[in-house]
Amino acid sequence: MKHMRIPPRTGVGLELAKGQLLRIVCPNGSQVADVTAFAADYRTEYLSSGRTIDYVGSIYPTTGDRLWSNRSRPMLAIEGDTAGRHDFLLAPCSQEMFERLYGVVGHHPSCYENLVKALTPYGVDSDAIPVTFNAFMNVTVDSQTGRIDIGAPRARPGDHLDLRAEIDLIVGVTACAAEKTNAGAFGPIDLELS
Amino acid sequence: MKHMRIPPRTGVGLELAKGQLLRIVCPNGSQVADVTAFAADYRTEYLSSGRTIDYVGSIYPTTGDRLWSNRSRPMLAIEGDTAGRHDFLLAPCSQEMFERLYGVVGHHPSCYENLVKALTPYGVDSDAIPVTFNAFMNVTVDSQTGRIDIGAPRARPGDHLDLRAEIDLIVGVTACAAEKTNAGAFGPIDLELS
Repeated sequence: MKHMRIPPRTGVGLELAKGQLLRIVCPNGSQVADVTAFAADYRTEYLSSGRTIDYVGSIYPTTGDRLWSNRSRPMLAIEGDTAGRHDFLLAPCSQEMFERLYGVVGHHPSCYENLVKALTPYGVDSDAIPVTFNAFMNVTVDSQTGRIDIGAPRARPGDHLDLRAEIDLIVGVTACAAEKTNAGAFGPIDLELS
Repeated sequence: MKHMRIPPRTGVGLELAKGQLLRIVCPNGSQVADVTAFAADYRTEYLSSGRTIDYVGSIYPTTGDRLWSNRSRPMLAIEGDTAGRHDFLLAPCSQEMFERLYGVVGHHPSCYENLVKALTPYGVDSDAIPVTFNAFMNVTVDSQTGRIDIGAPRARPGDHLDLRAEIDLIVGVTACAAEKTNAGAFGPIDLELS
């Protein structure tokens, strides 16, 4: 078992071999972790929100569901999920997003920037970072109007998401840097590889 | 004004200069058109579902909204929309999708295949085709469970969507090839460029 702690508002890249289990832990509760993945053998094959939502039949994948690539290959199987609410609609927070939606001036840490830093060493181009699977993020949709709302994460201390690699992967994970997404505070994210 | 008809279950690629208007018409009603776009100057900059849903604040962009790139640039402004329901959740239908979800055996026409054919001449890689903006597609989301449902398109004969290019673009448009998405029948899609 390998343990890793992602400090608040940072990110990591790692290799995950077929069959390995990645547990993503929310140690203090109420903290989002953006997750993305690329096939180790085809770096242009990535975790796809659109394929996953179609195959799962839901915007809220959970235990028993799989996360799919743009080539329709299963990439990760969700083997456990004690939080029960994750988002696959929104792109990772970025400098431009903070400026446009929240009027931020000057540099703001972001999941996009952290994923670029974490994945560049693995040959992933900055433009190739797709819509992320936002673990523990609480996005709701109004059925009638389609309006979205970002609520406080439901994750309590110790809640976790267990992802089994179905192919060899390069994975990026962050401890999300957005105020609203994390109910105004920032915690770390813990990873356990086995 | 340039007119173009996309025959049923096919697609086209075209250049759209900044300021040009693309009207996408559903001539017979009840027919979906998958739309994607790439920046003419950076072919790795593409129409992003995740950025758009975040900036629009809704899964149902309509008149007055803009469609955004992965680099957070506005690509297309929706200047008119007589149908009022489009989808930005699902990836374009593909051979693998028809096999996995509907048990299709043998070749099935698909928006993904048609977009690859249409956009390869413009230097777009097949893996780079993202989640499409699915004009006239009627996807609903259950607020509580997150389950999605694909209903019959609401578009009546002549309904249209007007998209103004905010930067120089390469655009791909299809007349969708999926049975369920189009209520079991296939019509053409008309394009008007001005």
